[in-house]
Parts: sequence; structure tokens; C-alpha cells
Amino acid sequence: MPDDRIGLWLIGAKGGVATTMMTGLAALRRGAIEPVGLVTALDPFTRLDLVDFADIVVGGHDIRAGGLGDEARRMWTESRAITPELLDGAADFFAEVEARLRPGTIVAAGDRIQSLADARTAAVVETPRQAIDRVRADIEHFQKAERLAHVVVVNVASTEPPPALPIPKDFAEVEPLLNDAAKCPLPASSLYFLAAAEAGASYVNFTPSTGATPACLQQVAIERKIAHAGCDGKTGETLLKSVLAPMFAARHLEVMSWVGHNIFGNMDGKVLDDPRNKAAKVRSKDHLLASILGYPPQTHVSIEYIQSLGDWKTAWDHIHFRGFLGTPMTLQFTWQGCDSILAAPLVLDLVRLVERGRRAGEYGALEWLACFFKSPVNVAEQDFSRQVTLLDAWATAHAAPGGGPPPSVP
Amino acid sequence: MPDDRIGLWLIGAKGGVATTMMTGLAALRRGAIEPVGLVTALDPFTRLDLVDFADIVVGGHDIRAGGLGDEARRMWTESRAITPELLDGAADFFAEVEARLRPGTIVAAGDRIQSLADARTAAVVETPRQAIDRVRADIEHFQKAERLAHVVVVNVASTEPPPALPIPKDFAEVEPLLNDAAKCPLPASSLYFLAAAEAGASYVNFTPSTGATPACLQQVAIERKIAHAGCDGKTGETLLKSVLAPMFAARHLEVMSWVGHNIFGNMDGKVLDDPRNKAAKVRSKDHLLASILGYPPQTHVSIEYIQSLGDWKTAWDHIHFRGFLGTPMTLQFTWQGCDSILAAPLVLDLVRLVERGRRAGEYGALEWLACFFKSPVNVAEQDFSRQVTLLDAWATAHAAPGGGPPPSVP
Amino acid sequence: MPDDRIGLWLIGAKGGVATTMMTGLAALRRGAIEPVGLVTALDPFTRLDLVDFADIVVGGHDIRAGGLGDEARRMWTESRAITPELLDGAADFFAEVEARLRPGTIVAAGDRIQSLADARTAAVVETPRQAIDRVRADIEHFQKAERLAHVVVVNVASTEPPPALPIPKDFAEVEPLLNDAAKCPLPASSLYFLAAAEAGASYVNFTPSTGATPACLQQVAIERKIAHAGCDGKTGETLLKSVLAPMFAARHLEVMSWVGHNIFGNMDGKVLDDPRNKAAKVRSKDHLLASILGYPPQTHVSIEYIQSLGDWKTAWDHIHFRGFLGTPMTLQFTWQGCDSILAAPLVLDLVRLVERGRRAGEYGALEWLACFFKSPVNVAEQDFSRQVTLLDAWATAHAAPGGGPPPSVP
Amino acid sequence: MPDDRIGLWLIGAKGGVATTMMTGLAALRRGAIEPVGLVTALDPFTRLDLVDFADIVVGGHDIRAGGLGDEARRMWTESRAITPELLDGAADFFAEVEARLRPGTIVAAGDRIQSLADARTAAVVETPRQAIDRVRADIEHFQKAERLAHVVVVNVASTEPPPALPIPKDFAEVEPLLNDAAKCPLPASSLYFLAAAEAGASYVNFTPSTGATPACLQQVAIERKIAHAGCDGKTGETLLKSVLAPMFAARHLEVMSWVGHNIFGNMDGKVLDDPRNKAAKVRSKDHLLASILGYPPQTHVSIEYIQSLGDWKTAWDHIHFRGFLGTPMTLQFTWQGCDSILAAPLVLDLVRLVERGRRAGEYGALEWLACFFKSPVNVAEQDFSRQVTLLDAWATAHAAPGGGPPPSVP
Repeated sequence: MPDDRIGLWLIGAKGGVATTMMTGLAALRRGAIEPVGLVTALDPFTRLDLVDFADIVVGGHDIRAGGLGDEARRMWTESRAITPELLDGAADFFAEVEARLRPGTIVAAGDRIQSLADARTAAVVETPRQAIDRVRADIEHFQKAERLAHVVVVNVASTEPPPALPIPKDFAEVEPLLNDAAKCPLPASSLYFLAAAEAGASYVNFTPSTGATPACLQQVAIERKIAHAGCDGKTGETLLKSVLAPMFAARHLEVMSWVGHNIFGNMDGKVLDDPRNKAAKVRSKDHLLASILGYPPQTHVSIEYIQSLGDWKTAWDHIHFRGFLGTPMTLQFTWQGCDSILAAPLVLDLVRLVERGRRAGEYGALEWLACFFKSPVNVAEQDFSRQVTLLDAWATAHAAPGGGPPPSVP
Repeated sequence: MPDDRIGLWLIGAKGGVATTMMTGLAALRRGAIEPVGLVTALDPFTRLDLVDFADIVVGGHDIRAGGLGDEARRMWTESRAITPELLDGAADFFAEVEARLRPGTIVAAGDRIQSLADARTAAVVETPRQAIDRVRADIEHFQKAERLAHVVVVNVASTEPPPALPIPKDFAEVEPLLNDAAKCPLPASSLYFLAAAEAGASYVNFTPSTGATPACLQQVAIERKIAHAGCDGKTGETLLKSVLAPMFAARHLEVMSWVGHNIFGNMDGKVLDDPRNKAAKVRSKDHLLASILGYPPQTHVSIEYIQSLGDWKTAWDHIHFRGFLGTPMTLQFTWQGCDSILAAPLVLDLVRLVERGRRAGEYGALEWLACFFKSPVNVAEQDFSRQVTLLDAWATAHAAPGGGPPPSVP
Repeated sequence: MPDDRIGLWLIGAKGGVATTMMTGLAALRRGAIEPVGLVTALDPFTRLDLVDFADIVVGGHDIRAGGLGDEARRMWTESRAITPELLDGAADFFAEVEARLRPGTIVAAGDRIQSLADARTAAVVETPRQAIDRVRADIEHFQKAERLAHVVVVNVASTEPPPALPIPKDFAEVEPLLNDAAKCPLPASSLYFLAAAEAGASYVNFTPSTGATPACLQQVAIERKIAHAGCDGKTGETLLKSVLAPMFAARHLEVMSWVGHNIFGNMDGKVLDDPRNKAAKVRSKDHLLASILGYPPQTHVSIEYIQSLGDWKTAWDHIHFRGFLGTPMTLQFTWQGCDSILAAPLVLDLVRLVERGRRAGEYGALEWLACFFKSPVNVAEQDFSRQVTLLDAWATAHAAPGGGPPPSVP
Repeated sequence: MPDDRIGLWLIGAKGGVATTMMTGLAALRRGAIEPVGLVTALDPFTRLDLVDFADIVVGGHDIRAGGLGDEARRMWTESRAITPELLDGAADFFAEVEARLRPGTIVAAGDRIQSLADARTAAVVETPRQAIDRVRADIEHFQKAERLAHVVVVNVASTEPPPALPIPKDFAEVEPLLNDAAKCPLPASSLYFLAAAEAGASYVNFTPSTGATPACLQQVAIERKIAHAGCDGKTGETLLKSVLAPMFAARHLEVMSWVGHNIFGNMDGKVLDDPRNKAAKVRSKDHLLASILGYPPQTHVSIEYIQSLGDWKTAWDHIHFRGFLGTPMTLQFTWQGCDSILAAPLVLDLVRLVERGRRAGEYGALEWLACFFKSPVNVAEQDFSRQVTLLDAWATAHAAPGGGPPPSVP
């Protein structure tokens, strides 16, 4: 039943998150792995009639040279995070996806990202509007060629700098600026969103880049009935912050300072070595503490590129707090997680859930997906546990009764 | 209005938790500290018409020699956890409480605890029933002499070994055994509970000792309409387990092993050096993981007495988990908390909340207090965040409207 | 020049250390790896005319079933510590070695180790003397068949329990007891040493087992002019102790307590789960602190088998010390090392150095090798840095002048 | 015998290190503490005929307002690092020292430090030469008024920025520039050194500031026969680097990256918040690794001011290294030390040892004191253990025989 197939269109299709996701999707299809790390493999999500892994067709944009398989293999050679067996098993899948890749746009992507582009992509001169039209055409072609019921566009590209110019609240003011790269305030991630919206695709922003967050673009989403979710996947240190900070709040322990140092060595780390790109990321990692605690402790977040770590993000957090009688105490944690491994299954979860939300008639920012993001659009709640409660409530409301179909993957 | 005063009767009144609580209560009364660490100083609890700190009268039992002030001062000299200023400021308060102390019972307290008793207490020979009667009389005398509206008995004594004999389900079978120490299966903590119940007092078990947990004693509580809560205050490593484990579950990350090493140097540590006493504690710290995760990871909990640490409990936990594609990852944390400082305000919170619950007509195990305990009586839910939701719901339902009285302490 | 080839005879040839060493030796021979981790690849050792990797012939005893390649591959499948490429590349080497393996003896090896033996080995009934003779014959056959200039026997078997009976100081008293397993106080590791000595082979004890340590056996070594070194390879937590403790001593910082928790999941871990075997290991890991500091701090060492860790030994050490004005301070470290990876190159180093020492006319305990061991035989110095100075001094004295031959491995 | 008394003249006399040192010196004199943390309280230093604590007279310069006792008390109120008892006991001592304090110079001290100066000090306008003359006069007055046999000047002021202008090699070229603040390349710490040298005092630079390090100033020291030592006391994270890096080198384990994050909240931290001042400190903390290892690993050092930590410096270091077969492994440590507590006794040690060296006829940079410093002047050796061997050798050569006088402090 080809009409039931769903498209997953990746912005940044050659990156670590994307290729790890593909390796896993290929493995899930042939039953080579258990669905560990996939939220949607748990009850009640298994009763939601989500799209099967076998029915997800992958394509995407990227600005870099290099084959998909080569990029994925670095997850083995540089990080020992994916086994050679799984990479070998995904070779055919990579070849299929590679045939569907299209060159991305570097319009308004920032110097650091532009410097990564291959010669052909770097040579393209286009206005923002031309970039949108080109990207939209790629997405539409993908949907038509693969006969897809729906496409979900997911941004897993490197973090771009925050916009330099203010973005008008009314899209009518933005639209004419799209014809002039020098005046247009929208960064590349927002152009991709507009392309998705104009193509009727859903949109997920897994990065701290601007994407669909500006009010004028949320307006576009509502007018065009586009479902979207974001932003910035919550996979490691920030996830822990959103889990631990509520404990201090509930026990009335006063957090005096919260210091978080992050070191890692993947492409994302290289891009974040540019202070402008890093600024966007640090803000996304830092703002939730004051929101959860109700007061602003002194905070410090560092992100450093340490080549030898590859895709392994090591975070050390030092939390200095005061208890009864003013006694100072300390909690430290060290998180040794593999960024792409943590992120990849969430991308699959989000594609499945956003597509399901759309089938349920939802559009605009899907707020019940807040638990997946560091900076959930339009959601003030930062407490992970309460965000999970939101998600579970939605799923339970839309799930088949307890006797529903079993998980589609063993 | 003396009739509104409430009694707090401590089992283990000379211990670190009790004397730290007294130091803090004295400081709160004279406005010398902010109520950091007190859950009941937060909204909505401040709108619950809880007993004022000025209206809590303290007394209790202990089996040891030594003055209250001396014990409290060790929190300074051995642990640097309470400042000399606060200890000096509590001198009068200690003198008042000291005048109300009575010798505890060592019947069925276990060898390790019996070895701590002063000569006079160690010399007392009594049956369990005689011990109950004596303790009950002490509580009744306290209530009458101080003209107290109600008394809450709180067990903060050292951990006793688990019962050696099986405890019958029906209290009718237990009652006759109270006359024979050799046959009676109830440990000291349960005798204290019976004394409290017979005196009409509420009962809080802040330790992993048996207390009111056996079915036959819960039956007594219901028949006599006694409110009780327990057991084992959740203050450090286990609190973190109940906060972090739900994150792994929600993200479908498979916890392969969870190792927790605890080192500390207070009296509790010395008592736990006895393997029988330690067994009760380890069980209480360990069981929640399988309950939250839905499967049993390999676990290991150690508790070691390291004298130099004084009251500072340092816990190192190593959590080894698997994510997508089976990739193993690690979270480690180091918790450097001061046990008595963490526990003491919760004792005050519990006294205020149990007394308020009783005023609301509640009796039996107060399940909405689960978030305070490692092993909440009759509550399966171990997820801290969900336990907090239970507590908040009860408080909100019983609180005055938002415009209610401000916190009684700045 | 076959007469220049040296034999390396392993006790515990199928274990993690042995098979990792073989994987590495095979890779070094074909130039597939750099000699990282090999002390003897550094100057001045490269000027010592040590045996080439190509001239080391490997054989050994083991009591277990299972092929060498299978055992080595678990370093990949269970621990991700050795890459499949290196294992594939060592296949021929494993086949060669496997043809030279002989069944070991379980006489006096302790219950835990005996339970690991394959059926054929477990069925052998022999007196200690018979075991010695059989092992000696195996070693002699190896030397003759392979035309080896010399053989070095290395004990890398699992840790055995400490001897249950006292061992006489005079070997003349021990010798007759060798005919009666029930009366003989020597454990298996010492029987292997005697077999080696009687075969004229050198002996290295890389484990905390008894080996050549008893005075009566050291006497045998001297009488027979046998070079030996041991015991217990210093590879991780204890290495760090011997590096850090001198710092506290030199700065007159008073170590109040030093707690070390070790978790790991390899065969060694399983064997150490038996308290008798663990006792030997803990003693070897613990005794050096008092020796270096000049006073005994409170210490605690735990070793726990956590299956999911495979060969990865994670150690958390908490050092509580006092400085000026009595102020307490803390150093914690977490060591995440792969036991076999750390040990294997040291085995190669020791074989090369012991053989070279013998060529220089040395016999008895080679004290200048102290830096390799937790419990160096006859050496009181436990400070790693000073032990390294001893080694460097010996090497410099015996090395060719600075213009000597380059390292044999790139 | 007043002529045997020695002067200790502090630059930065009101800082944490200085006031902690004074608190301790007062306590040592009245026998209130054991000499923990003092290297010179250990054998063989106790046999060196060092100046008694009772014979050290303290004075100094500072640029800040505020009383000594107030500054010291912040070590209690903000850091809980010194007990109130010891502070109370030092009150008379503080009063004595306070009477000897003189205003320091802010010439060439950098913006950040100048902003800390009190109004009177900030108002002084003087050329470098005038500052030198004024400071020299203060030192000479101190020596004469207190009838001191010798004065040792110790720089414990905040870190200044590195010099902006190149410093000529020949002092003859520098001397005329001293008359013009705008052209003079010497920072304040070097002016203090020149004042000390011209007064015939010894000089210790306990900070990373320039001090006596430039070649032209070392020349001055030799011409005037001035003993000096420096620079930058090695007390915490860098001490550990100089202890741990040699282990990796000795074992041929390849350090791929070494990341060190430092957080603390004292005045030093505030000054280091200025990137120019921080640059000097980071360089001093970072350079030793390549020197010890023989190759440059990727390194990162951060220093952040976190107010709640007070004088407690918490350092987290992450060392990523490769062993045999290229296997990556990790060592992490967390150091929780109190900066002033660690530094203060070393200041006393250095005063005693420099004065003793001078008595032994030494002048110029005292290289045998290298183990006390992060950047020892004229010493390439960075391995702490080998530096300690240098110190021990000097002490042993100059000590009375083993039967010498016992330590002067219990």
C-alpha cells in the first residue's frame, strides 16, 4: 500500500544524527536491533497506529561533499559508537538515500557553516526566495517520486548563529525582504521551514537554530495548517537539568550556582567553536534553570571542541546548593553520552508522532512534544517529568485500548 | 492560646537529625534563618494553616547518655555543618527540651543499638508490653503537662535490624506475645508505634526500621484512627534515584547496572556497620529501581562508615545504560550532602503535615506523603516527581485560596 | 637465527590479559599498530638490545575449555575494547599458539578457580609433585620443540585465595609435603613457579597469587639462579594510589581516609566475587598507602563484579585530607580503564626485561622492576616515581650509548 | 635574641593567602594547631635550623581598604574554611601586623587591580622609579624598626596582566625607562622586586605575575646577590597535573586531550574574570603538560568566577588517553581544595627556606625550590616527584645529622 508511506526529509542529511538515524532505521527494518532509545516503542505509543519503520522513506539536503556511508563510518572509526556490523548492514539503505539527496542552501547560514560547503554548493548565488523555491521543489519532487502520503522535514543541520536583524512580527513585512539577501532577517533554518510549509510538509527543528520559532512564521504555520515542533533536541546535559532542577525546587533547596562544562569532538563541536554559533546553543542550554527554580542562580555553560572525543559528549555539572541552616552542599554529575546515538531515535519518534498528530488534525506548534526539546515552542513548562505527563496524556487519549496492536518491532 | 500547641515527641531525641532539627526550630522561632529546606515554607503549603514553629513543643526518648547541646555541637566540631552561632542561639531551647527527655527502651532494638545505651537504660528489664506502657505514659504525661492539642511521635533513632521472627497478620495473635520478650516478633520501633497509638498520638517513621509497616499494626492504626507516615526519609542518594530513574524509563534507555556507594561517618554509619542493621537500609535504598524501570537492572549498594566524614554523606553512583543501536553510555554522580541537615527540615514538614492531615480527618497511612520516604507505606509509586504531584494535589485541595496568609517565616 | 628466539609461556593463556597480549603481539609483528602502552618502546629501553617482537614464541597452560580466538573476541563483543580488524588479523597467530597449549593443573587452585575447569582438566588427580613434573615437562618440551634460547613463564591466571596453611621458611621442609595434596601448603601459582625453576625458566607473577614470594621459594630461585619478578601488575587504581599518595606526603597534607571502589565485569571479577580470592586482591591494593604516607589512614577497598562493564574497570576513589589549620578537603578520581588493555603490554615489557636481566647475569627477585607491581617482591619502596627512577637507572646502565639502534617498531 | 628575627613582607597583605597565613602563624606560635600542610615541619627540614615561627615578623603592602581581621573573617563567613576560634585567637596578631602595613602602588598593575584600590592609594601619582623608592623605603624602615636580621618579600597579590611591551634583556636599557610610566615595560610585581633587591631583601613570587622572571631582573638579582624564587605557587589542579602526567609518560600511555575546568569565588577569581589577567594564569597552568609528556596533547583550561564557592577552588579535569591497541580510556578527577589554605603554609615554608638558602650563601633563582611553583624560574623539570627529589637533596645536604633538633612545633 504505497500511499501509506511517509517521507522523512532531512536538512543536514550527511551529519552524525542523520546517518546514525539511517543506520538504526535500516537495522530496525531487518530486525537486527531492539528499539532501545525509541520512546515510541513503549506503551501507550505502540497503540497509536504510528507509521511503521518499513514505511518511512528518507531523503534530504546537505551542503557538504562526502558519501553517507563514509560519514556514518566515522561514528565507528572516530567514536566506536556504532559497530561495523550495523554499518555494513546499512550499506544498501545508504545507497538508496544517497540517490535522493539534493544540495542545500548556504543562504544566511553563517560563515562557519558556509565554510563547510562543497564547491558546487558554495558557488550557488540565490536570493532567500529562490532558495525557498528550490528547496520546496526538491521536497515536492521527493513526495511525488516516492508516492508519499506526507512528508516531515527535520532540521538536524549544524547550529547557525542567532539572527543579526530583528524579525518583523507580521509575515507580510517579511515576504518582500525574501528577495534581498542583504535585508532578509531570516536565517537558513527559517527558509527551510518556509519551503516545507509551502510544500505542505510538517517541520521539526531538532537544533537551536531559528527555524519556525519567530511569531511571523508560527503565523504561517497556522494559516497553512502546518504541524511543527521544536526546538533543540534535549538529549544530555540539559535533559538532566530539566530532571534535577525540579528536585531542588520541590525540596526548597536553594541552588546558588550551576556550572556545566561540555566537551565533545564532532562536527557540531567544530561549528560551535565559532562564538556566534555557540551563543545560540548556550542560551538554549541555560535558560530553563531560572524558569524551573523560580529565581536565577549563577550559571555558567561552556561548550568546547575536544577532537579526541569524537561524538562522545562528556558533560560535568557542578551544582552548589544551600539547605537547612544555610549549609552549603554539592551535587556533581558526569554524563558520558554519544550525541548522535541519543538524538537519532528521537528524530524517528518525532517523525512518527508529528505525522500522527497531523492525522489527528493538529497543526501549529505541537506543544505536547515539549519533552523532546530544550526550548519547546510556546511551552513554558521546563520540568521534564511534567512534560512527559503532557506527552503521555496525548498518547493515552489517542491510543487504541489496552488490547491494541503489539509493538511492530520485537 | 496554649491549647493550639502541638507536641513533637522524638524517638532518638539525642541523635543528629533530632538535634539539628531543634537547632533549626530554635533559629526559625527567633527569625535567625530563612526556612530553606522546608517544603512547607513554599506555596501552596503556606496556605494550609499549618502549626506555627512557635507552637511546636519538643520532647522525646533516647537511650544514650550525653547532653543535647553536646550532641548538636558535634555537628560543628566533627562536620562543620552547623555554625557555632546557631548552636549558641539554641542553648536555651536545648535546656527546655532536655528537661522533657525520658529514657527509651532497648527491648528488641538489636545488639548494636543496645550497646549504645547508658548504664541506667541498659539495666532496665521489661517485657514488650511493659515498655509500651512506660513509653505511652511518658507521651501522655508530656501532652498533659504541656497542655498540647495533639502529639506527633517521630522515629529518628538508628536503624534496627529487620525482625527475626515472622509477624502475624492479625494483631489479636500478636497481643499475647507482648508479654514475652523472647517470643514477641515486634522490634523496638513497633513498640514505640503501639505506645503512640495507645496514647492517641500520630506517628512518623523516618527510618527504615519496622515501625507501623506490618499489616497487623496498620490495622491498629485504622481501628484507633491514628494517622501515620513512613518509612525512611528520602534525603540523598535514593532521592536522586527516584528522580533519575524515571528519565531513563521515559526515554527507553536501558539501565544495565546501577551501582551506589555511600560513605559517611556519623552514628548512623556506626550502627550500619553491623551487617544486620545494614541489610534493612540497603533494601530500602535499592528496591525502587526495578519498580520504576519495569525490569531489574544489576544493582549494588554499599554503605561504609568512614569516620573523617562526620555527618557528610558522600554517594557515588555509576549508572551504565544502553541507548540506540545498543551503544553503552554512562552517568555518574557524586552527592555531597549533610544527612542531618537534609533530614531535619523534613521532620518539621512531616509533623506539620501529619497534624494537618489529622485535622482534616485523615487516619491510617497518609499516602500523599510518599515523596518524603524511600519506602512509602502502601504506595507503589516510586517516581519522585509523581509523588510530588500527589502531595501538591492534597495541599491544593486543602489550601486557602491564593490570597491566603503569607508564610509565617520570612 | 632461530636460537635467538625466546619463549613466553603463559599460565592462564586463555584469559583476557593473555589473549589481548597475543592480539597485540600479532599486530606489532605485522606493523598494524604503534607500540603505545609499551614501556620498552621508549628510550632508553630501545637501546637495551631487547628481544624483537618477531622472536617471541608463545605457548602456555590453561584449565578452561574454549578457543583462544573466541576468548579474545569477547574483548570486542562484551567490551568494545579491541577492534574486529585487529582480532581478524591475529587469527593465524591464535591458531599457532593454540597448538602449543597444554592443560593446566587445578591442584591447590581454590574452589572458585576449580569450578572453571573443563571436564578433562577437572578429572585429573595428581599430587603437587606430579603437577610440577607435568608442567615442567610441558615447558621443557616447548623450549626444545621451538628451539628457544630461553623461556619466561608468566602467571596471568585468575587470583587464587591466600594459602590456608603456613609455609615453612626452609624448602627442605616443603619438599616432602609436595607428595601429599592435603598437607602441602603451596597453592597452584607456587607449583607453577617450581616447575618453571626446575625447567630453568624465568618467572613473572602478574597476579596477587602466592607464586615465588614465600622465602623458601626465593631460596630456590637463588640456588637455581632463576630470575623472577612480581607480584600483581600495577595497572589502574593502585597505580594512581602510588602516584598520588607521595604528593600528599611531600606536601604534609594529612590523609584522613582513602576509599576506593572498583567495579568491573570480566572473568577476574567473577573469581574475585569469592571472598577468599578477593581478600588477596584487596590486601595487595591497600597496603601501600600506610607505607608511603608513614601512618595508616582509614582505608576501604571494594571490588564488585558488575557484568555490563565487561573488561572495563571503573574505579572511584575518594580521598579526604586535612590541610593547614585542619581544614578538610577532598580529591576524587574516576578511572575508566580497560584492565586487559592496560596489563597486556606490561606482560610483553616484563618478558623482554626479565630476559634481558638474565642475559646480564641477574637472578633472584629483580627489584628494579618494582614499578610494574602492586606488591614488588623484596622492595619496600611504593612511590611509583621512585620506582620508575630505579628502572631507568638500570636501563641506562645497561643501554647502548645514545646513538644505539632505533626502536624495532615504528 | 631580637637580631635573629626575620621579616616577612607581603605584597597583597590583605588578601586571602596573606591573612590565612597570619591566622596560622598566630596559631602555630601559641601551639593551637599542628603544623599540617607545612613541608618544613617534616624531616629532614626540621634539621635545617630554620627560623622559628616565633621569630617571623610580618608586615606588608596592600592597595585595598578594609581591616586584616575583616578580610580573614571572610574565610569563615564566605567559605567555612577557617574556624572562628582560630580567627579570634589571631586578633592581637592582626592588630600588630596592621600597624605595619603601608599603601602599595598601583603603577602598572592593570585596570582590574587598579579598580580595587582605595581612594587614597588610587590618588597617588608616581613614576615607576618613585614607586620603587617608596616601597624600598617602607621595607628598609620595617627592617630597622623591628631590628630584623633579614627580610623576605613575598608577592601574594592578585594576578596582573602579562606585560604589554617587550622587556629589554639588559637592565641598563630598562633603568632610564623607570622614570616614565608610559614607556616603562615593567609591571607592578617587577617594581616590587626591584624595591626588594635595592633594599637587600630576598624575594618570592607566589603569583604568575612577572616579578623577577625577566632576564634583566635576574641579572639584577645576581649582581646584588639577592636570593629569589618563583613563580606561581603550585597548590591544586596544576600540582595534580605535575604528579599525574609523569605517570602517563612513564607508562607510554598517549594523552590525547587534557581538559581542566576551575571554578572558585574569591578575590583572585574576580581579578581573573578579566581576560588579560586570566591569560597569564592559564599559560602558567597549561604549559607543563607538553614539557612532561614530550608532545603537545590538545589542552583546554578554563577559570571561572563562581561566587558561591568563596575560597573553595573546585577543579574538574578530564584526561583522555590511548593505551595498547589504540584503546581510548579516561581519567577524571575533582579537586575540592581551599586555595588560601593550600597556599598559606607554602608561603611560610618558602620564607624559611629562602632565608636558610641565603644563610648558606645562595643567590639568584633558587632552583631547588621548583616543586613549590607552577613556572619555576630557570627550571625545565616539571615532574613534581623529581622536583621534590631536588628539594630533598638540598635539604639533606644542609641538614644537621639525623639526631638533630626535633621539630619546633608539636
